[in-house]
Amino acid sequence: MIPIISIVGKSNSGKTTLIEKIVPELMRRGYRVTTVKHDFHGFEIDKEGKDSWRHKRAGAHGVIISSPQKVALIRDVDRDMSLEELRDSFGGDADLILSEGFKSDVQPKVEVFRKEEHGELLCTKEDNLVAIASNRPFDIGIPCLDIDDVKGIVDLIESKFLKGGRREDIALSINGKRISLSPFVKRFLMRSIKGMVSCLKGAENPKRIEIKID
Amino acid sequence: MIPIISIVGKSNSGKTTLIEKIVPELMRRGYRVTTVKHDFHGFEIDKEGKDSWRHKRAGAHGVIISSPQKVALIRDVDRDMSLEELRDSFGGDADLILSEGFKSDVQPKVEVFRKEEHGELLCTKEDNLVAIASNRPFDIGIPCLDIDDVKGIVDLIESKFLKGGRREDIALSINGKRISLSPFVKRFLMRSIKGMVSCLKGAENPKRIEIKID
Repeated sequence: MIPIISIVGKSNSGKTTLIEKIVPELMRRGYRVTTVKHDFHGFEIDKEGKDSWRHKRAGAHGVIISSPQKVALIRDVDRDMSLEELRDSFGGDADLILSEGFKSDVQPKVEVFRKEEHGELLCTKEDNLVAIASNRPFDIGIPCLDIDDVKGIVDLIESKFLKGGRREDIALSINGKRISLSPFVKRFLMRSIKGMVSCLKGAENPKRIEIKID
Repeated sequence: MIPIISIVGKSNSGKTTLIEKIVPELMRRGYRVTTVKHDFHGFEIDKEGKDSWRHKRAGAHGVIISSPQKVALIRDVDRDMSLEELRDSFGGDADLILSEGFKSDVQPKVEVFRKEEHGELLCTKEDNLVAIASNRPFDIGIPCLDIDDVKGIVDLIESKFLKGGRREDIALSINGKRISLSPFVKRFLMRSIKGMVSCLKGAENPKRIEIKID
């Protein structure tokens, strides 16, 4: 599955700025990054008066705008989705999901800290904190990198989450609900399905398999 | 699979206006509609200066904005996607995909025609035209409804594409590429996978099944 890392930190700590620095460095190394931003207050994204905006205003549950360069989708949901759900539904062909915020999610986190702004860290090791990017040292048993050491931060992300091959996993949804699977059932389903499809033409070396029955 | 219908017509024939009328009527009947609009020239959708806009500008391949009410996704693509590909990637839990335009796509079409604007139809029966919504009659062997008869147009869409149960189908992608399957292989895969998952807890009555192995 696509690995997920959250860049967290108190307000004004520099989360967006750090993401703006590490995304190009990840790109330079050949990775496709999809970022996630939470918006507590809802958001307006399409431009008033555009056809797609008129579709949505008329009550469309979702609107897709397609062009040769990019695709946009706006869809109603009935609750906040977890990073795992967002990855499964919208991750597509990314190599890495990088979220800004999502402190309460279970995914691994890098905290941004600037001593001018705050006195204490937002997270502890128990929050699945894997590194700190800060302009003062912290000695709490996790790597603490300089906030401006973009190469070092990306090295850490790369070695921990991108190198050494992706951990193969399976996600199964039935009628829109994610089904939790034991390690044995996961292995059973993965091997059975891989075996079934691998004899099809064009499917000789199946790495990423997506199946929809509907 | 989610049925797809395209509302086509020459420029200024009233495609968006018709969509604005039929979406609320479909909603009233309990259907979730996702619309699709093609944008030939690319588009700017996010607001300059927003964090998600900064992520994308920094080079993110995709950006997801998540709120409790809706989710937006903007993702780079390397070519125009067909309606079938858009449905498979972004259709989610919709009951119907309604596109504006996409005349060259293979999907069934309803043509909007207004005699004040044009002299001839855009499509023929060979374009998979299933109905005409017009303010003058046409006698070309397909239903021609009054452009203002929203109920009649939605009745036709409902009876042709939404009533009588969805035609069950399977879509398989390997490493991001759609694999074409013969009817026999489709049946074989559908029944095998349904059988395998139907003994899992929470999967007793599998209608919509989504599997990702990665």
